[in-house]
Amino acid sequence: MKNIALLTSGGDAPGMNAAIRAIVLSAHHYNYNLIGYYHGYNGLINRECKSLKLADVNGIIGRGGTILKSARCNAMHSEQGVNQAILTLENDKIDALIVIGGDGSFKGAIKLAKHWQGQVIGIPGTIDNDICETDYTIGFSTAVNTAIEAIDKIRDTADAFERVFLVEVMGRRSGHITFNVGIATAAEQILSFENFDCTDQAARLNDLSNDIKVVQQNRHAGYLIVIAENLWPEGNTNLAAQITNKTGIDCTPCILGHIQRGGAPVAKDRILATKLGIAAVQAITEDKTGIMIGESNGAVVTVLLQHATQKTKEVSQRLIKAQHDILSVSNQG
Amino acid sequence: MKNIALLTSGGDAPGMNAAIRAIVLSAHHYNYNLIGYYHGYNGLINRECKSLKLADVNGIIGRGGTILKSARCNAMHSEQGVNQAILTLENDKIDALIVIGGDGSFKGAIKLAKHWQGQVIGIPGTIDNDICETDYTIGFSTAVNTAIEAIDKIRDTADAFERVFLVEVMGRRSGHITFNVGIATAAEQILSFENFDCTDQAARLNDLSNDIKVVQQNRHAGYLIVIAENLWPEGNTNLAAQITNKTGIDCTPCILGHIQRGGAPVAKDRILATKLGIAAVQAITEDKTGIMIGESNGAVVTVLLQHATQKTKEVSQRLIKAQHDILSVSNQG
Amino acid sequence: MKNIALLTSGGDAPGMNAAIRAIVLSAHHYNYNLIGYYHGYNGLINRECKSLKLADVNGIIGRGGTILKSARCNAMHSEQGVNQAILTLENDKIDALIVIGGDGSFKGAIKLAKHWQGQVIGIPGTIDNDICETDYTIGFSTAVNTAIEAIDKIRDTADAFERVFLVEVMGRRSGHITFNVGIATAAEQILSFENFDCTDQAARLNDLSNDIKVVQQNRHAGYLIVIAENLWPEGNTNLAAQITNKTGIDCTPCILGHIQRGGAPVAKDRILATKLGIAAVQAITEDKTGIMIGESNGAVVTVLLQHATQKTKEVSQRLIKAQHDILSVSNQG
Amino acid sequence: MKNIALLTSGGDAPGMNAAIRAIVLSAHHYNYNLIGYYHGYNGLINRECKSLKLADVNGIIGRGGTILKSARCNAMHSEQGVNQAILTLENDKIDALIVIGGDGSFKGAIKLAKHWQGQVIGIPGTIDNDICETDYTIGFSTAVNTAIEAIDKIRDTADAFERVFLVEVMGRRSGHITFNVGIATAAEQILSFENFDCTDQAARLNDLSNDIKVVQQNRHAGYLIVIAENLWPEGNTNLAAQITNKTGIDCTPCILGHIQRGGAPVAKDRILATKLGIAAVQAITEDKTGIMIGESNGAVVTVLLQHATQKTKEVSQRLIKAQHDILSVSNQG
Repeated sequence: MKNIALLTSGGDAPGMNAAIRAIVLSAHHYNYNLIGYYHGYNGLINRECKSLKLADVNGIIGRGGTILKSARCNAMHSEQGVNQAILTLENDKIDALIVIGGDGSFKGAIKLAKHWQGQVIGIPGTIDNDICETDYTIGFSTAVNTAIEAIDKIRDTADAFERVFLVEVMGRRSGHITFNVGIATAAEQILSFENFDCTDQAARLNDLSNDIKVVQQNRHAGYLIVIAENLWPEGNTNLAAQITNKTGIDCTPCILGHIQRGGAPVAKDRILATKLGIAAVQAITEDKTGIMIGESNGAVVTVLLQHATQKTKEVSQRLIKAQHDILSVSNQG
Repeated sequence: MKNIALLTSGGDAPGMNAAIRAIVLSAHHYNYNLIGYYHGYNGLINRECKSLKLADVNGIIGRGGTILKSARCNAMHSEQGVNQAILTLENDKIDALIVIGGDGSFKGAIKLAKHWQGQVIGIPGTIDNDICETDYTIGFSTAVNTAIEAIDKIRDTADAFERVFLVEVMGRRSGHITFNVGIATAAEQILSFENFDCTDQAARLNDLSNDIKVVQQNRHAGYLIVIAENLWPEGNTNLAAQITNKTGIDCTPCILGHIQRGGAPVAKDRILATKLGIAAVQAITEDKTGIMIGESNGAVVTVLLQHATQKTKEVSQRLIKAQHDILSVSNQG
Repeated sequence: MKNIALLTSGGDAPGMNAAIRAIVLSAHHYNYNLIGYYHGYNGLINRECKSLKLADVNGIIGRGGTILKSARCNAMHSEQGVNQAILTLENDKIDALIVIGGDGSFKGAIKLAKHWQGQVIGIPGTIDNDICETDYTIGFSTAVNTAIEAIDKIRDTADAFERVFLVEVMGRRSGHITFNVGIATAAEQILSFENFDCTDQAARLNDLSNDIKVVQQNRHAGYLIVIAENLWPEGNTNLAAQITNKTGIDCTPCILGHIQRGGAPVAKDRILATKLGIAAVQAITEDKTGIMIGESNGAVVTVLLQHATQKTKEVSQRLIKAQHDILSVSNQG
Repeated sequence: MKNIALLTSGGDAPGMNAAIRAIVLSAHHYNYNLIGYYHGYNGLINRECKSLKLADVNGIIGRGGTILKSARCNAMHSEQGVNQAILTLENDKIDALIVIGGDGSFKGAIKLAKHWQGQVIGIPGTIDNDICETDYTIGFSTAVNTAIEAIDKIRDTADAFERVFLVEVMGRRSGHITFNVGIATAAEQILSFENFDCTDQAARLNDLSNDIKVVQQNRHAGYLIVIAENLWPEGNTNLAAQITNKTGIDCTPCILGHIQRGGAPVAKDRILATKLGIAAVQAITEDKTGIMIGESNGAVVTVLLQHATQKTKEVSQRLIKAQHDILSVSNQG
């Protein structure tokens, strides 16, 4: 019998609750104790926790957010904070810790693993899908669907007014959401780190404005740009204003923002979270540590946390090229 | 047999297509010709139009936007523009004009009615619900539902992080959307023109910040503020920054924006639009003119366009008082 | 200070939780005790209950179902059952009872009121909208929207296959859902108690089959029939088979069923439930009894429970006539 | 320059339109002519077709159904029908035919390929996901999400009444939808061909009824069974009646039916369809024939149509085992 600790950390992602549920069911199946710590690593540092039972996860598979709350935790950047967290793990006689979160959360887990003897297991939970060695992260599919439903609505107005809309989606510094959303909404332009180098802003603005003017000339439809957050140095509201100014065609900025983090998870995220949660507890039974549980080609994989955090997963070149070569011809129609 | 002209004008609203469909069906029923003009009043001024047949409205009852396109039309503010529009109506031998739009669109209709002999009928189509003498405008119910679905998602993150979110909804200068959305999402604060006087900004910021600090002290939940666009003089992103600064609790701004204008209309808007569209053509058979077709207490009403545009419909005092007196006690829980 | 009892009874309806929340907030505002009884009247008979506090209603405004559970209760049809319920109310020193439910639930409330001294207040909560003296019942708007979203999906297949679909919606023995859904989905036929007399089934089948054959002759679209449950004596699956047989065109039956009872309530139901919940507690402060709280023409109304249950609210003749006279011309397109 | 023919065949699936769009864009990119035939193979046999241009696919990426219509085609089971189809392909000087559909549609394509010299390319479009050599078929992800949204609603009533619901999902004779939906909705039971052998019906009914009785004994929640269509020999409505009878607990049948085939496709289906559509035209440039374009492990694959139709893709054993071993413990909570 083991004592397992569980926490959710960093930006919340739809499906985190489904993962928590799967872990509670699995822990019960293997007759393990399970303690949930609140507010990410803060819950370890401040010892805020509760024992997690079957009844606690009844009905949560379809709920956004996380019943364990989440937080960024600056204290984990100091040695003192890490030691405090370890002290709690030792006092509570924890044998294994499961962390559901993204890149930053995994780096915290690696720090703990250095000085603590227990097992450390990561589960990739972030809407950004920027963790390598796993095909998908929990929350990504829901975020993409939330964004396309929003943009399908914006398309109605764009077409009614034959106007330009600049829609910003999340993704931190990677374009997984941007490209998937852009292709799924038949966006006239997709702008992300992977295909839009902002070093020469004036040139970029020129290219973009010229394309808009040419495309909109003989056309009776809206022109949608899906753009990554953090891409344009002065912010996307500024870019929209400059486009309006340069083209003489109204360009309205829409920042989709936090609606992309919440909501009932789509099936894909519920099932992925369930599979990863089960596999994480399975890994604990096998005394594994220092690993992330991911899914690749439909199979569960275990990857060293070090590898998972070494670099960011890249957007498929095939998607980028498809947009550039073929899908963009729709602008001629 | 009459020739009817139809246009949609101003901000698009879900349900405009349902109204167009009902008008096409009714016109066919009464054996009238129906011509749709594109891009609001611009379509009259530039004579962009097409004959509308049954086949054109197949399948559009559930589509957002407007198949006739929409636009604001500055030309209608000049005498020359109005005359040009009248010329088109005369050349096309139009007997009656139906305008689907909001306050500004009706003012254009009134101008036309002054110098043109044909019948002029308005149908209230705007998400803002700020037209008086009708209980609802086409699009309002859908906009409110789109906003609550978005805010239900934001609530997930607000609760996970126990953080403050400031969510801006549309409504131009009236609080119908704000209050309905705020109450339906159990917002901790609802801020609109009707209950939040920004003359003394410093005082308002103080009140708000104090409330947030007191409420969040012992509480494990998010704090949602639903706020009207155009309310805070420096913009709501500015207000969020000031709240963060003053309370020391992160306040994230979310501008819901144009998602509120599009999307498949809810049943209420489809049915309202259908009823008003039928009644508009009925009014033409009865040689009425200079009127808006509205719905009040479940019955179709006809109102002089002059009256409908004289003042803005006010938000129900009962809603405002309920929020102030009773619903706000939830913040204590 | 008063002790208030609360229960939800009969078929569950989206918005019941919003009403419970409003009652909890209002009771707290007036400093009343509030006890929730589970499983409808069974909770009174078996004394299953719990005290309801602010924390219990956190986050429930947007949830379908009812946290107090619901049930039909046969025991209330016997004198013994009624007496047992009254005994509980007396033992628990209840001053007022609020019942959220439909027609059958109100009849139970009337029985209690005959022999019990406390106040009895009803709130109309049923998706069927068949309670008179209130414009809407809690749950109706959500059920209609759920049905139209489902039928919009069925329309895709109907059009792709140019086939007939017979879609059954709920409503017990009244056609509010049927007509609202039928009009909002541009159904080719709407069949309900109000416009389709099944006494002569052979004649009805003939009419229907002939219309289908004529309409489908030159047309490249689906043919959707929205039909009320309990209308066709042998059931709607049987009717679909007979139509297929008689027309030679495939007619597929779809029973929408219980999806119409659940799900997150739309804004309209959340707000209606909130207003009625507040007004119910307000009525208790005013020592009212034997009444239902409804909403008519936008204002709260109080009606004798006797009146509210005397007859069923009828479907607007205007809707029925609009469908018959005008909307049905779309079948020619 | 080549002439390409395109048709959609068999049960319609959300995403078929997205595939059509991608094919139109790609054909335009490679300067190919593209002709769409209507109503599946019937369009070849009866020569119903139209040239497909960029303007035809504007705005269809998010629409359910298929703009080319679909149908089952009995004529393709006869030699005469096949010859007639080939005659049309020859007369229209078609170089390559793309068929979007499922197993049956591919068998028709194989027949054509035997006697016709042109290229034949299949794209897997069916909600059932039962085509092997591709990880997903177009439409599957949307169908699963539609079903979970419906079941999330049914869960509300199941919990409110603590009752049993038997929910039938589609899938022809395979359990992909059943297992994915069952796991994503935390169903208490998942019954499909893979884990529920109906040879001894009495025994199965006994097992099931006993489980229900044991589980529901001390529990205050609903009990959801997700069951495959075509599984229980007398139909699932019959099974529900027998469960009610044997357990004394109400078991309500819900046949989700055709809502699973329609609706706006989720992002996954839009993107998959776009990738496969592009790859199909790419395969035509490479003079390939007799193949299906699928996606496996994130990469486009080409598979002989013979292989793709030889057997049905099986449901992952890992999912089945997870449900059996671990997830079912939730019934104890």
